[in-house]
Amino acid sequence: MKISERNLIDIISKGSLKRARGLLCGIGDDAAVIEAGEGRAWLISTDALFEGVHFDLGYTTPKKLGRKSLNVNLSDIAAMGGVPKFFLVSIGIPKTIDEGFVKSLYASMAECGREHGVELIGGDTSSSKSDLVISVTIIGEAKSGSVVFRSGARSGDSIFVSGMPGFSALGLEMLKRRIKKPSMFIEKHLDPTPQLKLGKWLADTGIVNSMIDVSDGLILDLDRIAQCSKVGYIVEIDKIVKDKKFDEVAGKMRLSREELILSGGEDYSLLFTVGKRNRSKFLKLLKQEKSFCDTIYEIGRITDASTKKAVDSKGRTVKLPKLGFDHFL
Amino acid sequence: MKISERNLIDIISKGSLKRARGLLCGIGDDAAVIEAGEGRAWLISTDALFEGVHFDLGYTTPKKLGRKSLNVNLSDIAAMGGVPKFFLVSIGIPKTIDEGFVKSLYASMAECGREHGVELIGGDTSSSKSDLVISVTIIGEAKSGSVVFRSGARSGDSIFVSGMPGFSALGLEMLKRRIKKPSMFIEKHLDPTPQLKLGKWLADTGIVNSMIDVSDGLILDLDRIAQCSKVGYIVEIDKIVKDKKFDEVAGKMRLSREELILSGGEDYSLLFTVGKRNRSKFLKLLKQEKSFCDTIYEIGRITDASTKKAVDSKGRTVKLPKLGFDHFL
Repeated sequence: MKISERNLIDIISKGSLKRARGLLCGIGDDAAVIEAGEGRAWLISTDALFEGVHFDLGYTTPKKLGRKSLNVNLSDIAAMGGVPKFFLVSIGIPKTIDEGFVKSLYASMAECGREHGVELIGGDTSSSKSDLVISVTIIGEAKSGSVVFRSGARSGDSIFVSGMPGFSALGLEMLKRRIKKPSMFIEKHLDPTPQLKLGKWLADTGIVNSMIDVSDGLILDLDRIAQCSKVGYIVEIDKIVKDKKFDEVAGKMRLSREELILSGGEDYSLLFTVGKRNRSKFLKLLKQEKSFCDTIYEIGRITDASTKKAVDSKGRTVKLPKLGFDHFL
Repeated sequence: MKISERNLIDIISKGSLKRARGLLCGIGDDAAVIEAGEGRAWLISTDALFEGVHFDLGYTTPKKLGRKSLNVNLSDIAAMGGVPKFFLVSIGIPKTIDEGFVKSLYASMAECGREHGVELIGGDTSSSKSDLVISVTIIGEAKSGSVVFRSGARSGDSIFVSGMPGFSALGLEMLKRRIKKPSMFIEKHLDPTPQLKLGKWLADTGIVNSMIDVSDGLILDLDRIAQCSKVGYIVEIDKIVKDKKFDEVAGKMRLSREELILSGGEDYSLLFTVGKRNRSKFLKLLKQEKSFCDTIYEIGRITDASTKKAVDSKGRTVKLPKLGFDHFL
């Protein structure tokens, strides 16, 4: 029997107790949020990478895999507007993996940790019968008042996305077709960058009212914001990305540009919303931030819950592909 | 190439940064300890169960497996003297597992959580190519001053253990030999109980100077205390357990009583030390605690680092079996 990730999250949520003391947010956001006193909050999240599901040892290296294991978790902290502090690693190692691989994996996690000021503080090591499994738990910190949840979007909000959704999915397709030449798309897939500075900056503006990282596809992750906020959305596909190289490579590979953009996973961009009356203030603040301003696109608006669609430049509805990337489908 | 767990912990520790601000204890104890302000500390630990390594779906049920996944983590909090608060679950589900199994697994984790006042606050769900993997992260709390580490044992200390080491290993042997009839040994293996009340009580006495839970075998875990504390030990094997039924079943199965006791894993007893000058005070306090006093045995003493041995009632050295249960050997 097949289990969809959404089903599973329903099962898990039902099993959960009512909200405990000190818990500001439990299941259903990028990270759980726990009150830490003195106006601070802890952010805690866990994400595992499974061989044959999230990575293929024929495509990646221990160095890139170590970085990615940590970076996908750092991205969850970015999506809440927090600062990451500590991480733990639970690893299952099959007989096919040697000590050199493991050393390189941990060295690259430590290196990646140093880049972001995050320390490895514990974990668990085990053998695994078949597949390599790397499960990371990340602990971050934020001011209680400035944590950004998935649930704050309101009808009329503008939707923004950072970076180029679809790049990672294009890179994965290239790897699957054994295209070996260096490519920024492949690089984006194997070694994604968590948007920690941007996430913190967005939270600090005080006017970003919902946020998520694009891990499973633009539409699927936007749909998560919509579900949590009880709203709908219209995405203007032509506003998302205009990258000549992307269009050229996708075209040559006979891949649908729209499908890559709307349902490609693992970009770890940030997708967020800003209320109507704060929009011009936000655009003004953004203009002053030279490191971010050229990488953020306004791609649509939040509507009431009855509308969920993407349109092209002429306002025609673009067929929504299956809802992004579900690890169970 | 084979990797020993000890090797791996060395690799991991080397990759770690120097101690971060607010970190009271990183890699190398049952849980990491982070300062939480106002004299409190957070305890964080992660432990994964891998199909074919830690459990066999032919032996266990989703209900028992769910409980065990959480309980082995609760045991890490018990071993630090803390109170568990929250947990996260990262799960990898192969195609062979159906939705009913997953529902039952999560329901039993939630039930077990309720028993201990612990709430599920997040996690990650994925498919897995081959094996079922359940990785749990536990978050607990304690007074900063009363956390008990592995590193506090001193020469001359008395060594104590709670419960009956070896019961779980005997149960596992029974399962492997397809012995189906109900048995407390099998029950102990499939559904172990974390010693949370005992761990907290021991920490609150203020005179227990080192502690660990017996997850990988009495001698291996005692050796971890010895390594962290830079000391040695003499274990008096005949003082450990005198259980007629245990001796009878082990005898019938032609298993070495000593080997089961010294190197059997997964009992989740607590192993701890008390300084020479606090010994009688401790025994007096213990006598007043009717719920614990009959389940705690004084089994030896801490020596300087040059001695590491087990002896029988006549003082003869008992051969130490290979150092307990290493998931890599």
